[in-house]
Amino acid sequence: MPNKAVILLSGGLDSTTVFAIANREGFDGYALSIRYGQRHAIELAAAERVAASLRAAEHVIADVNLNLFGGSALTGDIDVPKRERVADLPPGIPATYVPARNTVFLAIALAWAEVLEATDIFMGVNALDYSGYPDCRPEYVRAFETMANLATKAAVEQGRRTTIHTPLIELTKAQIIERGLALGVDYGLTHSCYDPGSDGLACGSCDSCLLRLKGFSEAGAIDPIAYKERCGVA
Amino acid sequence: MPNKAVILLSGGLDSTTVFAIANREGFDGYALSIRYGQRHAIELAAAERVAASLRAAEHVIADVNLNLFGGSALTGDIDVPKRERVADLPPGIPATYVPARNTVFLAIALAWAEVLEATDIFMGVNALDYSGYPDCRPEYVRAFETMANLATKAAVEQGRRTTIHTPLIELTKAQIIERGLALGVDYGLTHSCYDPGSDGLACGSCDSCLLRLKGFSEAGAIDPIAYKERCGVA
Repeated sequence: MPNKAVILLSGGLDSTTVFAIANREGFDGYALSIRYGQRHAIELAAAERVAASLRAAEHVIADVNLNLFGGSALTGDIDVPKRERVADLPPGIPATYVPARNTVFLAIALAWAEVLEATDIFMGVNALDYSGYPDCRPEYVRAFETMANLATKAAVEQGRRTTIHTPLIELTKAQIIERGLALGVDYGLTHSCYDPGSDGLACGSCDSCLLRLKGFSEAGAIDPIAYKERCGVA
Repeated sequence: MPNKAVILLSGGLDSTTVFAIANREGFDGYALSIRYGQRHAIELAAAERVAASLRAAEHVIADVNLNLFGGSALTGDIDVPKRERVADLPPGIPATYVPARNTVFLAIALAWAEVLEATDIFMGVNALDYSGYPDCRPEYVRAFETMANLATKAAVEQGRRTTIHTPLIELTKAQIIERGLALGVDYGLTHSCYDPGSDGLACGSCDSCLLRLKGFSEAGAIDPIAYKERCGVA
């Protein structure tokens, strides 16, 4: 029987690629999406399409209302920044940083993994293309893993150590897309935009759209999703 | 202006004592309760009474549906064990262990602390009287703190290190009660029972009631709350 893995799945390009990698590595994927007060349900709809397409053993949407606290463009109280091109990204941690988000997500994943008796958690964090987020760095991931292996009954009483897999952490967006295309990922199912219109179309000028478009361009591939403002390259 | 602290407040005896200790240490207490699919709303009602009584600067109830996953007597899918006395507690991790609960709670506390620009989090974990829970041990708490200080924008960009305070971690239940009484805590506002009746009365025979009754007895004090089955000592 294949090993179970909990896979954090936002429905974006990175987490979808990670799911395909976990499948290829022979894991039975348990998809975990988190409704954390995002402005848009569009992301969760994409996660459902991806989970079905990649044959998740199960797909669970957990709720945690981080929007209670505010403090981020992604939980609704700051405007999502728009720009012309990736080169315009300012240095430092972006306004779309959500306080402690990956810690909350990994904690919930750890809870589910323990109940499933799974020892593997996959997450699509990336330290290269969007290095502003502190909770996307390898040293953070290793520290979470150390903590997790002191936290659970599974680890302490049964010796089941948890591994946090972050197969994209050192890849560029172009390399991620190449990897996914080689694995047959349909990126038309995914959603990356931080600020889609009411029609669901990606804006083409938030940081997430810019990095996605640049990645497809550098990979020499066509992004199959539709954009509101342009279909070109950042 | 006093420093802000996020204080995890279940409305039980331990977290209430911790709140009083944080007050005494001069912190402005921001009470955080988590609705995680408990069987009973009685606990959250107690948290509200305690937050008001101890003059919380704010009291927030965050939701996270850990009951999606099951795996614990406290999220509803296993019966809460009942016993005659504390000596009957079996060794090992109890059935009331909730997978990764403290990790999820601390992660949410970390998110709120970052938004508040607070560097201090208080939690009523205890490694002595109820040492079965892996995520109540000092080594776990230190590992969480290490991880937290790699996770946030506050730590990485602004150098604001988070401290997790666990002032009860090495105390017996009797010592906790003595400390709280000396600080003027009204334990009549608190709720500890894992399995209260529909009338809200504590059962008197779950592990939490047994430890509480034993603590009051050893402290030479009277527990001011009413019990369903007995008012005596375990």
